[in-house]
Amino acid sequence: MSAHQGFTLWFTGLSGAGKSTLSEALEREFRRRNFRVEVLDGDIVRTHLSKGLGFSKEDRDTNVLRIGFVCSLLARNGVISVSAAISPYADIRAQCRQMTEESGTAFVEVYMNAPLEVVAARDVKGLYKRAMAGEIPQFTGVSDPYEAPENPEVIVDSGQEGIEASTQKVLAYLEERGLISA
Amino acid sequence: MSAHQGFTLWFTGLSGAGKSTLSEALEREFRRRNFRVEVLDGDIVRTHLSKGLGFSKEDRDTNVLRIGFVCSLLARNGVISVSAAISPYADIRAQCRQMTEESGTAFVEVYMNAPLEVVAARDVKGLYKRAMAGEIPQFTGVSDPYEAPENPEVIVDSGQEGIEASTQKVLAYLEERGLISA
Repeated sequence: MSAHQGFTLWFTGLSGAGKSTLSEALEREFRRRNFRVEVLDGDIVRTHLSKGLGFSKEDRDTNVLRIGFVCSLLARNGVISVSAAISPYADIRAQCRQMTEESGTAFVEVYMNAPLEVVAARDVKGLYKRAMAGEIPQFTGVSDPYEAPENPEVIVDSGQEGIEASTQKVLAYLEERGLISA
Repeated sequence: MSAHQGFTLWFTGLSGAGKSTLSEALEREFRRRNFRVEVLDGDIVRTHLSKGLGFSKEDRDTNVLRIGFVCSLLARNGVISVSAAISPYADIRAQCRQMTEESGTAFVEVYMNAPLEVVAARDVKGLYKRAMAGEIPQFTGVSDPYEAPENPEVIVDSGQEGIEASTQKVLAYLEERGLISA
């Protein structure tokens, strides 16, 4: 028996909520265990999958669905596929879930629940300041909607939890669900 | 030892040269042997990866590079990834090859060598007639270039060979190269 199944680990949350940090920590842990894993992070996606797309609702939807498609391809071939995009719209996340589950693999949604005040105050990349000054149009949480998931598999309180606690929380869920072995 | 490695099987050739037919025959054979395989055929690509792209040189390049990227992701995770796009430009195929080889897997280019006269006379989908009447702009081989590969791993004379002979030719190459077991 393999030490893990193929599945999609789908992060969602505001910019600065810690999606990349947590996905990287989990990737390290998966690699340490010799699991097959691919992280579709922002840079990879922008370079290889979404060149030419902007930030309109339609373009965002196309981008997120495309990531979901690639994740489902990888997952059904036994890979742990990780998406760390904001993916602000609930209906599009639902479509990604459906596409993944229809190809016979699990879709694990991890909600990085950090209040806007917290991520905006932290403002690691200085983006919220610029967005609030109107310099970045259609910025999720400021000038574009973010729809929080109603029934995510895991909720990470990234405003409060440390990275180690969050990592363990996700691993514990995956083990309990039988998607990875302990 | 696994019965196959992950690699990319990259078809190139004119519309009607038999790329889809041969890739489907090989997919059936791979599945019969319980190999992991994904075929990125035209419909899948247009729906899930390339919505919004047209047939300009730039859009074609983006489309082909995107397929190459997904193939390389799958291949490096042990999957036989098959592209059946026309992929008319040699430099872009070379970029796909480089991307694949840099991620540690083989890129096997299969040139479906059917003369334009043959595929145009056959005209299975009626596209050549329309293209030659000027109804389809930028149609590869008619009003848009097709650059044949200079050193493909396999050449299939699809104007002359039967599908069974072509299938065996590709399988024999893959076995000889050690990419699949006999």
